[in-house]
Amino acid sequence: MELRLAAPEGSAERRLAVIDMGSNTFRLVVFRYRTGGSFQLVDEIRDAVRLSAGAGPAGLHPDSLERAAHTARLYAAFVEAAGIDDVAAVTTSAARDAANRDDVMEALTAGGRLDVRVLSAEEEAWYGFLGAVNSTTLGDGHVLDLGGGSIQVSQVVGRGLERIVSRPLGAVRMTERFLPGARATRGDLKPLRKHVVKELADVPWIQDAGGRLVGVGGTIRTLAAMHQRATRYPLDELHGYLLPRTGIEELVDAMLELPATERSRLPGLKQDRADITLAGAVVIATALEQLGVDHVEICSQGLREGLFYERFLQPLDPPLIRGVRRQSVLNLVEVYRCDVPHAAHVCELALGIYDELARVGMHTIDRRERELLWAAGMLHDAGVTVDYNDHHKHGFYLILNSGLPGFRHAELAMIALLVRAHRKALPNPAPLEGVLDDDDVDRLQRLACCLRIAEQLERGRARGVTGVEVDAPDGELVLRVRAEGDPAVALWSAALEGPVVQRAFERRLRIEVAGG
Amino acid sequence: MELRLAAPEGSAERRLAVIDMGSNTFRLVVFRYRTGGSFQLVDEIRDAVRLSAGAGPAGLHPDSLERAAHTARLYAAFVEAAGIDDVAAVTTSAARDAANRDDVMEALTAGGRLDVRVLSAEEEAWYGFLGAVNSTTLGDGHVLDLGGGSIQVSQVVGRGLERIVSRPLGAVRMTERFLPGARATRGDLKPLRKHVVKELADVPWIQDAGGRLVGVGGTIRTLAAMHQRATRYPLDELHGYLLPRTGIEELVDAMLELPATERSRLPGLKQDRADITLAGAVVIATALEQLGVDHVEICSQGLREGLFYERFLQPLDPPLIRGVRRQSVLNLVEVYRCDVPHAAHVCELALGIYDELARVGMHTIDRRERELLWAAGMLHDAGVTVDYNDHHKHGFYLILNSGLPGFRHAELAMIALLVRAHRKALPNPAPLEGVLDDDDVDRLQRLACCLRIAEQLERGRARGVTGVEVDAPDGELVLRVRAEGDPAVALWSAALEGPVVQRAFERRLRIEVAGG
Repeated sequence: MELRLAAPEGSAERRLAVIDMGSNTFRLVVFRYRTGGSFQLVDEIRDAVRLSAGAGPAGLHPDSLERAAHTARLYAAFVEAAGIDDVAAVTTSAARDAANRDDVMEALTAGGRLDVRVLSAEEEAWYGFLGAVNSTTLGDGHVLDLGGGSIQVSQVVGRGLERIVSRPLGAVRMTERFLPGARATRGDLKPLRKHVVKELADVPWIQDAGGRLVGVGGTIRTLAAMHQRATRYPLDELHGYLLPRTGIEELVDAMLELPATERSRLPGLKQDRADITLAGAVVIATALEQLGVDHVEICSQGLREGLFYERFLQPLDPPLIRGVRRQSVLNLVEVYRCDVPHAAHVCELALGIYDELARVGMHTIDRRERELLWAAGMLHDAGVTVDYNDHHKHGFYLILNSGLPGFRHAELAMIALLVRAHRKALPNPAPLEGVLDDDDVDRLQRLACCLRIAEQLERGRARGVTGVEVDAPDGELVLRVRAEGDPAVALWSAALEGPVVQRAFERRLRIEVAGG
Repeated sequence: MELRLAAPEGSAERRLAVIDMGSNTFRLVVFRYRTGGSFQLVDEIRDAVRLSAGAGPAGLHPDSLERAAHTARLYAAFVEAAGIDDVAAVTTSAARDAANRDDVMEALTAGGRLDVRVLSAEEEAWYGFLGAVNSTTLGDGHVLDLGGGSIQVSQVVGRGLERIVSRPLGAVRMTERFLPGARATRGDLKPLRKHVVKELADVPWIQDAGGRLVGVGGTIRTLAAMHQRATRYPLDELHGYLLPRTGIEELVDAMLELPATERSRLPGLKQDRADITLAGAVVIATALEQLGVDHVEICSQGLREGLFYERFLQPLDPPLIRGVRRQSVLNLVEVYRCDVPHAAHVCELALGIYDELARVGMHTIDRRERELLWAAGMLHDAGVTVDYNDHHKHGFYLILNSGLPGFRHAELAMIALLVRAHRKALPNPAPLEGVLDDDDVDRLQRLACCLRIAEQLERGRARGVTGVEVDAPDGELVLRVRAEGDPAVALWSAALEGPVVQRAFERRLRIEVAGG
C-alpha cells in the first residue's frame, strides 16, 4: 500500500459502525475515515450485557437474552438515526457455542434489524490479529486475546497469522465456574490455574514459546490501567504499555484482599468488571507463564479495529498497513491539518543536519533517532489547531494524548518533547523521566538542536535554504548553509540557537553561507 | 448575518496573509477560513524591526529602513512560496509621518513586490475597532490601541465607531524622547506623564469618560502577561483578561528597579520589548487615569484581525459579527468537528431540564447560565478529536486553550469545566477558583446535572427522547421523559445520575415515562 500524505482529492469521508457483541461487553463504535487517508474513532457506546452469564446446557439464559435484545435495539436505533449505512455487527464465543441459537440470533439482531455475523474462533482470532498487527510493530510473536467467553492465542510469523488456538477460558466463564463467591482466597485460585494449564497443555507451540507477546481485550486493558495507577505511571496511554507478569500477580493479591463488590475501590478497576477481573488476571498470568514471557505489551485495538481495517484498507488483501509507525504519524498530520510542504522541508533540513553532525563525529547515526526526529518534524506544528500561541505546548499535549500506535512509550514521549522543544524554552523532561530511555535527556537536546535550527532556517516558509553542511573545528560548530536567494534572515534566525547548541555540544555556533 | 453551523457546501477554504508593518514590530499572520464558516490563525512571523527607531526630521533612519527592507523581502518570499495570493499589507504611524516617504515605501514594498497600504490614523483606528468589537461584547465604551508610534483612542457607541483620536504617544517614540537611558527613576516618569496628560487634554470625550475600556496592542498584551505571571493567574489566556490600573503601576515600579537590559528577567516581558514597555506602561496608566477607568480589558485581536474580518465577513458592511459569543462557540464546533445534530439535541434537552428546574422552584432562570449550558452542550464532545478515551478531559484542555472570545474568563472556565463534567467523575474546580465567579462551584453542579442527564437521555444518539418534565415532590426530583419509541435504555442511563442530582439538589432522582 502506498501511504499518502492526505486523502486523494475527492475521496469522501466515510463512516463505519462496528458492533461487537461480546460475551461480557457489547460495544458500538464509529470510525470516521477516508480511504487512503486518516481515520479516527469518533463514537462509542459500551454496555456490560453479560451475554454469557448464567449460560448452561440449554443455552444462553433468557435474562441475558433480554438484556442483549435491549442493547441490540438501542444499537439498531443508533445507526438508523445517525444515518450510518455501513455496519459490521459480529458476535463471538457465547453465541457461537449456545444451544438456543435461534433465540440468541433473534435477540442479537433486534428481531432482524441488524445483520449480525457469528464469528468462528478462527475469524475472531483473525480480526484480533488484524487489530494488533496494524497498531503495533509485531512481526513475530504471539497475540493473546482474552474475552468474557474465550481466550485466543495466535502465533504471528513475519506479520502473518500462522495458527491459533481458542479455549473457553473467558473471564466471565472462569469467574462463574471457579470464583463465583463474593470472596476468594489464594487457595481458590489453584484449581483455576490448574485448569488453564491443562487446557493449554496440548498446544505445543505455546509452551515456553518466549518472544514478543501482544495482549488484547478488556480484561488485559483493565489490568494495565490498574498497574499504571498503582505505580503512578506518568502517561495515561494504555496502548503500548508493558505490563509485567509480576505486576499482574500483585494485582491478583490486591483483589484477593477485597470482596468482589468492593474491588472497584482499586484505582483503574471499573464497577462492572470488578467481579470478573480476578479470574481474568489469573488466566492471563497463567498463560504468560505457559508462554514463558515476562511481559505483555498492551494493545488497545483488537477485534473491532480489525473489522475496521478490513474496510479501511480495501482492496488490500491481507489488510495490513505496511508501515504502522509512519502511518500513525501521517494520521495525526492529517487530523491536525499540518502544513505538509513546510513540515516536510523542516524534516529534510533537520535530518540533513543530523547526518552532518554524525559525519563530523558529534554523534553516531541511529536509525531510531532519525525516525523520532522525522516524526517530530512532521508534527511540530500540530498544536496550531488549538491556538497559534504556545502551539509547541499544545502539540505536546495532543501527541501525548492522541498517541502514536507502533511507537514505544519512551518514543512517544520523546516525539512529544521534541515538538514541545521546537521553539521557545527547552522543556523540562523530568515529569516524563519514568518512561524515557537512558540517555533520552541528552538525546532530546541533540535532536532539538537539529529541529530548531531547521525550523529557523525555514522560518520564512519559502524553502529558500536547500541544505546545510556542518564542520566542527576546535570549540565551534559551523553550519554552512546552501540557499536560493538571500539567506540573511535564515542565517540570523538560526544563529539564535547558539545557546541550545552550546548546551548540547559544548560548542559555539557559527553560521555561514556555503562557499561564501 | 446569518450564522451557520458549518460552511456552506462547496465553500472552499481560503487563506489571507495580513502583513502589519508597525512602528515597533512587523508581523505576518496567515488566517485560514471559509466564508460563512470558521477561521483560525495558522501562521505567524514576528520581527522587532523598530521602524521608528532613530527617526528625525529627515524621516526614518536608513538603518531602520534597511532592517525593514530585509523583513519585507522575507515576507514577500513567504507569501510567494506559500502560494497565498490574497495579501493585505499595511503600515501605520511611522511611515505615515515620515519625511522620506519614497525611501520608506521602497523598503516596505520590498522594491515593489508587496502592495503596502499606508493607513491613515482613522483607518488604523477603524481596523483596530473591527478587531476589538468582533472579538468582545463591547457595545459602548472605548478602545485604546497603543503601538510603537502612536496611541489611538476610539469611542464606541452601539457597536459603532463614533470618533477617534490619534496622538504620537507610541511606546518607541516615548522611550526615545523621555526614557532613553539604561536606567530610569520615578522622577524621570513625571515629564512623560505630564506630556500624555497634555496631549489628551484637548479631547473632552476622553476626560473622565468612565465605562468599559478595551485595550489593544503589543504593549498592553505584554503588561497583561506580566501581571498574570506576577499574580500567578491560573489561565494562560490574555484575551479577556481584566488588567487593573493599580497592577500597571506595580509593574512600572518593578521595571524601575532594573536597568533596561535586565528587565526581561521579569516574567512575561520579552527581550525585544524590555526597553520600551516601561514608557508604554506609563502612557497606558496615564491614559486610564484620564479616562477615569480602573481596569482595561485585554483584547488580543486588533488591526490585523480587523483587516481579516473585512475579508471574512464580506459583503457585510460594516463587517460586524452579530453575536460574538455564539460565533466563538460555533467556530470551535467546526474546528473540532463536533457532531452537530447530536450536540444540538443534547443542548435542547439540557436547556429544557434547566427551564423545568426553574419552573418547579429549584433555581431561577438566568440568561447567562443558560448560555453557558448551551455552549458546553455544543462543545461537549470537542475532545474526541484528540482521543475518544478521556474526551471530556481533552475537551476541557482544548476549550481553555483555544479560548472563546466574547466570554469572560470566569465564563470560559465554566464552559470548560462543564465539558469536563459531562461524563465520568465531576471535576475539582479548585485550580480555577481564582477566575471563577462567586457561586460558580454550586452553579457547576446544577448545570452539570442538566448536561449529564441530557447526554444520558441522548446516549443512543437516536434523538428518541423529545423532552422532559420535572416535578419536585418532597425529597425527590422526578423527571418525566417524553419519548418516541422505547425509552428504557435512556431511562436506565439517566438514572445513573442520581448521585450528581443528590449532591446538587439534595434530592433523590426518579425517572419515569411521561404519562406512563
